[in-house]
Amino acid sequence: MVEPANTVGLPVNPTPLLTDELDIVIPTIRNLDFLEMWRPFLQPYHLIIVQDGDPTKKIHVPEGYDYELYNRNDINRILGPKASCISFKDSACRCFGYMVSKKKYIFTIDDDCFVAKDPSGKAVNALEQHIKNLLCPSSPFFFNTLYDPYREGADFVRGYPFSLREGVSTAVSHGLWLNIPDYDAPTQLVKPKERNIRYVDAVMTIPKGTLFPMCGMNLAFDRDLIGPAMYFGLMGDGQPIGRYDDMWAGWCIKVICDHLSLGVKTGLPYIYHSKASNPFVNLKKEYKGIFWQEEIIPFFQNAKLSKEATTVQQCYIELSKMVKEKLSSLDPYFDKLADAMVTWIEAWDELNPPAAVAGNGKA
Amino acid sequence: MVEPANTVGLPVNPTPLLTDELDIVIPTIRNLDFLEMWRPFLQPYHLIIVQDGDPTKKIHVPEGYDYELYNRNDINRILGPKASCISFKDSACRCFGYMVSKKKYIFTIDDDCFVAKDPSGKAVNALEQHIKNLLCPSSPFFFNTLYDPYREGADFVRGYPFSLREGVSTAVSHGLWLNIPDYDAPTQLVKPKERNIRYVDAVMTIPKGTLFPMCGMNLAFDRDLIGPAMYFGLMGDGQPIGRYDDMWAGWCIKVICDHLSLGVKTGLPYIYHSKASNPFVNLKKEYKGIFWQEEIIPFFQNAKLSKEATTVQQCYIELSKMVKEKLSSLDPYFDKLADAMVTWIEAWDELNPPAAVAGNGKA
Repeated sequence: MVEPANTVGLPVNPTPLLTDELDIVIPTIRNLDFLEMWRPFLQPYHLIIVQDGDPTKKIHVPEGYDYELYNRNDINRILGPKASCISFKDSACRCFGYMVSKKKYIFTIDDDCFVAKDPSGKAVNALEQHIKNLLCPSSPFFFNTLYDPYREGADFVRGYPFSLREGVSTAVSHGLWLNIPDYDAPTQLVKPKERNIRYVDAVMTIPKGTLFPMCGMNLAFDRDLIGPAMYFGLMGDGQPIGRYDDMWAGWCIKVICDHLSLGVKTGLPYIYHSKASNPFVNLKKEYKGIFWQEEIIPFFQNAKLSKEATTVQQCYIELSKMVKEKLSSLDPYFDKLADAMVTWIEAWDELNPPAAVAGNGKA
Repeated sequence: MVEPANTVGLPVNPTPLLTDELDIVIPTIRNLDFLEMWRPFLQPYHLIIVQDGDPTKKIHVPEGYDYELYNRNDINRILGPKASCISFKDSACRCFGYMVSKKKYIFTIDDDCFVAKDPSGKAVNALEQHIKNLLCPSSPFFFNTLYDPYREGADFVRGYPFSLREGVSTAVSHGLWLNIPDYDAPTQLVKPKERNIRYVDAVMTIPKGTLFPMCGMNLAFDRDLIGPAMYFGLMGDGQPIGRYDDMWAGWCIKVICDHLSLGVKTGLPYIYHSKASNPFVNLKKEYKGIFWQEEIIPFFQNAKLSKEATTVQQCYIELSKMVKEKLSSLDPYFDKLADAMVTWIEAWDELNPPAAVAGNGKA
């Protein structure tokens, strides 16, 4: 039976802060001075810092932040032989933070990302917008021409089926970047001076059946809904490829969200991306990915999960089998990656035993 | 062999005006005073005015505009018995204008639409933006998170397959509305005071496989590429439904564009929509559509055209057969509509004999 709520004494806050339900994951190799600028927005949250590279190096975290920090030695100690699925010398290592978190939501941000301004000059609280995106539904089955229909001042337009207006749960919120756009090495080389100065005041659901290039720089997601699929793959040290960690995760999560009727949003919030990585170094990391993606993307576009796959873990294991079967011919790397996908799920379940997952109806 | 062009003496103009290749189609029942405000942008173009309702009424067109005007008597005279496919007492009659045009491009606009301002206060030249949209490619096969990659200051982001960066021809440009949003009657009733004040500075391709609610208020398209599918159906006088003319066309053109690998763009330009139609009158026109669309949309989502259908006309005739077969059980109206779709194509081909269609490789 539905009863009215007692709202006496409840705080009035249009966007919940979720400070107890959200961890911020930051992969880094340097001091985290960038957090100074984020203090008004991020200090109330707990940080999970994943230190890449030399574990003896001391990373400085600005005072007042509450954090836990893991270096390579910690990862090896916690995961044992399963640590092989966590990349080294690549920001893909960040997904270890997703795994050790015990919270429902994750926000991950790169250490060269600063607070952006909206067109009125106001500082953008990126995390608040991500939370808004994650807490309101998605509309993946039909396109709404006025963008997110759940946003204030907007709605579903004429011709939008009423049966679809409840929407589905949002699993992923993909934010964008002002200043340095997220270009690949060839585009960086061709357009070294291009800056993104266009602030597009929109959030939208990426339609079902459509893949997108997910960037890990400014990303939030619901761990309970999609966490076990947020694996950033094998990149960097000892691997033939880099800078495809977030792309890999993006293809996987989109196929699984489509299968499980979960939503993926993109658009707001913007962060200010301060420095482009070296395009020559990037080209070396990316070049295999640039031609592999021509086969990987059709593979994911055609990937059909079975009706039996009803949890994220089951979907991910199915996907790993398809990767082994269909992509290993492209390069032996994919055979290794398929195995790592399985290891990742084993490690995830070990650190997140089903009974301990609060509020997750899928485990 | 590729030879360098001789550009001596050519005018420098970033967006071609296409004054000789574009007609503006306006359905109306009243004097066209709204064109005064549009004079700086629209006066160079030829207008095709489709007068709805009482043919004896004299429509005033502001001086200086070059136009042809068709009332119901003209439509009956020109099409003979085939005039039955053109709606009466509904803005669906506008599609007659698409048929009699001899130009490559059409821009259609409602007579309650005025010039919008962008956030800097500058008047928006809607037609110029539509032309930009139509002349640059679409990217329907993969989502670009920085929106239209062909726009100045933007590009394809990291992870976008290089094989897809040439894009496909753009067939349709769907513009939006500030002030009065295009809501259905129930939403108008629930939110009578909602105004759209959000200017979203974006153009984007609607992904392949995704349907959208196409509004006919501010719309441009390439007649050569998609014209024969821009049929606005049977609405208004003598029909059980109204205000679904543009929706019907939108579902049909999207399925056909997807089949023929043509692009549909939405977003900029905005017009300023000055007055909401009466929600009570609208509810009467819409109410059958509101429940029919729950079956029509899945029908279009699942409509698969055959490989043999390689022209718009062939696609449209196939679609008409599917409508007859699958939707007639919903209401006898769809049987009649399916016949009208065939009549429309016959009338189109009569007025646009294949040999006379300039630059149309598909006829």
